[in-house]
Amino acid sequence: MGGAAAGAALLGDALGGGGGGPTVVPAPRRRTLWSQFLPKNMAALYAARSALILSESAADDPRYKELPPRFGRMRLLDGDSSVRGATGSTGYNTTVYKVVNHDDGMAYVLRRVDGLRRTTMSPRVCEAVSARWSKVAHGAVIPLRGVSVHGAALFFLHDYVPGAQSLAERFLTGAGAAAPLPEALLWSVACQLATAVRACHRAALAMRCVHNPARMLLDAFGRVRFNGAGLLDVLEAESKKSLAELQAGDVLGLGYLLLALATRSAAASATPQESMERVAAAYSPEFAKLVHRLVSVRLSADDAVSLLAGRLGDEVSAQYVMVDALDASLAREADNGRMLRLCIKLLCVLERAEVAGDPSWSEQGDRYMLKLLRDHIFHQTTADGAAPQLDMGHVLEALSKLDVGHPQRVLLSSRDGRTLLVSSFAEARTMLNAAYDELRRGVGPSPA
Amino acid sequence: MGGAAAGAALLGDALGGGGGGPTVVPAPRRRTLWSQFLPKNMAALYAARSALILSESAADDPRYKELPPRFGRMRLLDGDSSVRGATGSTGYNTTVYKVVNHDDGMAYVLRRVDGLRRTTMSPRVCEAVSARWSKVAHGAVIPLRGVSVHGAALFFLHDYVPGAQSLAERFLTGAGAAAPLPEALLWSVACQLATAVRACHRAALAMRCVHNPARMLLDAFGRVRFNGAGLLDVLEAESKKSLAELQAGDVLGLGYLLLALATRSAAASATPQESMERVAAAYSPEFAKLVHRLVSVRLSADDAVSLLAGRLGDEVSAQYVMVDALDASLAREADNGRMLRLCIKLLCVLERAEVAGDPSWSEQGDRYMLKLLRDHIFHQTTADGAAPQLDMGHVLEALSKLDVGHPQRVLLSSRDGRTLLVSSFAEARTMLNAAYDELRRGVGPSPA
Repeated sequence: MGGAAAGAALLGDALGGGGGGPTVVPAPRRRTLWSQFLPKNMAALYAARSALILSESAADDPRYKELPPRFGRMRLLDGDSSVRGATGSTGYNTTVYKVVNHDDGMAYVLRRVDGLRRTTMSPRVCEAVSARWSKVAHGAVIPLRGVSVHGAALFFLHDYVPGAQSLAERFLTGAGAAAPLPEALLWSVACQLATAVRACHRAALAMRCVHNPARMLLDAFGRVRFNGAGLLDVLEAESKKSLAELQAGDVLGLGYLLLALATRSAAASATPQESMERVAAAYSPEFAKLVHRLVSVRLSADDAVSLLAGRLGDEVSAQYVMVDALDASLAREADNGRMLRLCIKLLCVLERAEVAGDPSWSEQGDRYMLKLLRDHIFHQTTADGAAPQLDMGHVLEALSKLDVGHPQRVLLSSRDGRTLLVSSFAEARTMLNAAYDELRRGVGPSPA
Repeated sequence: MGGAAAGAALLGDALGGGGGGPTVVPAPRRRTLWSQFLPKNMAALYAARSALILSESAADDPRYKELPPRFGRMRLLDGDSSVRGATGSTGYNTTVYKVVNHDDGMAYVLRRVDGLRRTTMSPRVCEAVSARWSKVAHGAVIPLRGVSVHGAALFFLHDYVPGAQSLAERFLTGAGAAAPLPEALLWSVACQLATAVRACHRAALAMRCVHNPARMLLDAFGRVRFNGAGLLDVLEAESKKSLAELQAGDVLGLGYLLLALATRSAAASATPQESMERVAAAYSPEFAKLVHRLVSVRLSADDAVSLLAGRLGDEVSAQYVMVDALDASLAREADNGRMLRLCIKLLCVLERAEVAGDPSWSEQGDRYMLKLLRDHIFHQTTADGAAPQLDMGHVLEALSKLDVGHPQRVLLSSRDGRTLLVSSFAEARTMLNAAYDELRRGVGPSPA
């Protein structure tokens, strides 16, 4: 959402997505041992997204009262000025929030629309629109999760895309002549939205505002996302236009959107002749022909996709590369969760002040052994014992072995050197899980 | 590679890729708090891949001597019978290994070809072929990383795709009539390979063995990968065929490959008329027409991609969904990675026996505060203090706040209740990093 321009700019920069074609994620090549964290720009991207998801208004913010009670952790998405106050062509009194649904712990975008007539807020229409949009699953359409009436207002619930900016904010604001956008970016937008329009039309729906660059978000990976599924289906349910007309309008709207982006002017469609000349001057004949056909001939979504045949091959090839890059990163990070779980268990079990009245629970029996293992893994010293030694490879390898219950045995020594114990990682894993389960059951120690 | 059929079967099953269309990765939805690990099937997939990358022959295996010295951690990829002994149409004495390159720590596939004439092993040709293939970057082509002569043998180095099986092994082995493959799978294969062929032709290369289902690997995500870039360019460098002929052969080969898959018979191209009738009986007219055109008309790769226009839209839409699913999983594991790093730091800093001769380092100054914070995060008890209470939500939220340096302040109490300290997560983060840096520098405590 455009609510946090600084965050969005960071996300854009994180992947060098300065307006080029399909963004390519840097691919870490496979390593035999997990040996480092994510590439820095990717790590920054995900950290920034997490921060946007977590950020919230203070608990005493009166606007919490504007929301249905199952939502909390609210932040106003203020920057989304295109939405606040006006939706589509007609003006609606709209407020947009990032919220968290207490029921499932997920972050969403909640749109509150006030001042509607009672007939517009028909629960029957709300349900029907929700049900129909739930059938659309396309990567360039932000899913509609529900429409409901609460108090005097109508609420739309969509998935939250942290850090995305609208195409309008990203490319069409700022005065003066801006440099033309790269043609590869425009082809990618065309491929994404043509297939998205087709997916909606196959579900007997229309997007209804494809032409509007404020309705299209762009994320750090170069993905365009339609940010308004279902809005006009409810707000203008009484429209007299047929579905066929609305669908033809979507394809035409795609033409106007491309015209606006190619001329970097939101008003390009007001002077189509002149705008087309500018497109022809700045871009390839193939692209100019695409835009010309979209805005001058009544086409179906299937026709639009067919027009893009050659370019869809490039788009899908770019997506294969993206899948491979994400997959390679995920393969490397897949162990993080398991090792984190182990560390949390160790931190919960060891050095507890008392458990069920027993102040020495953490020092007894198996827990004592785990404590010595903790020293072995995390408190290594130089060979002469004089200085601490931090060897992340040693730590991660030991955690991996503890996680899988490796049969390797380690010699553990008490701090005074008087006691020596031998234990395998497999035994230690069993002990750790048993101790953690004891804590979870909230009971005292078993006879040690 | 087909070397570990059991592993490959596991990977295939891990994602339910039992032969359907483009495999869809289960997408975790975004959560405000990290609350679970990777979906089990994904975790199993990555664990199985890691195991395949790490597995190796015993160090005294004499075959290590067959490899150039910069490669180790060798495992023979025996199951790849299509390659062992014969490459392409002519027979070559070939052995295929999984290896790790000591220089970069990455896993590769190394192909050793013996018994060649000296003229075939021309360093000039090897270099030229490497250089040309290095320009092809397509998700359905396994990159060629080098061709070299060592001793009396020729070596090809490609990236390793752990757990993939060839289309021949997966779909064309086993006697008797097999059930027809889903049409969606065949369209996906067609889209992937048509765009891959086009990418190679744009680099003025030919694949030369597209028709051969043993040369095409299939991974757990449904991705097809051409597994033989550059082989015939070197081995048959003296071929009299022109590039145009070879390229036309690639497109024809795609037709024959689809014919073989659609009839589940590797010999389908021997009886094209009968095979086409079987395709027409089992599949849509649209698909039958595609195969018929590919095998009966001389087409360019661009023509082949254009034939697929409508289906490329489906393929790219499936890839968008895959990118989103991997991205959501990676976002969650990136959060885990940051929290893991914090936990490791806490475990390294707290409760150390002694640092540079000071037995109370872990109990002094900032470290004492961190110890109390550890108690606050991990050692919660029920309100009456009688029993331990494990609340993962509390732990993870606190770790998140420590990670971002949240300004929220917490009241920390010493175990005897006599000392109360107030600290923000931001201050605690600074203290933790300072203490960890002290350990890393291996020096004693600063004056506390």
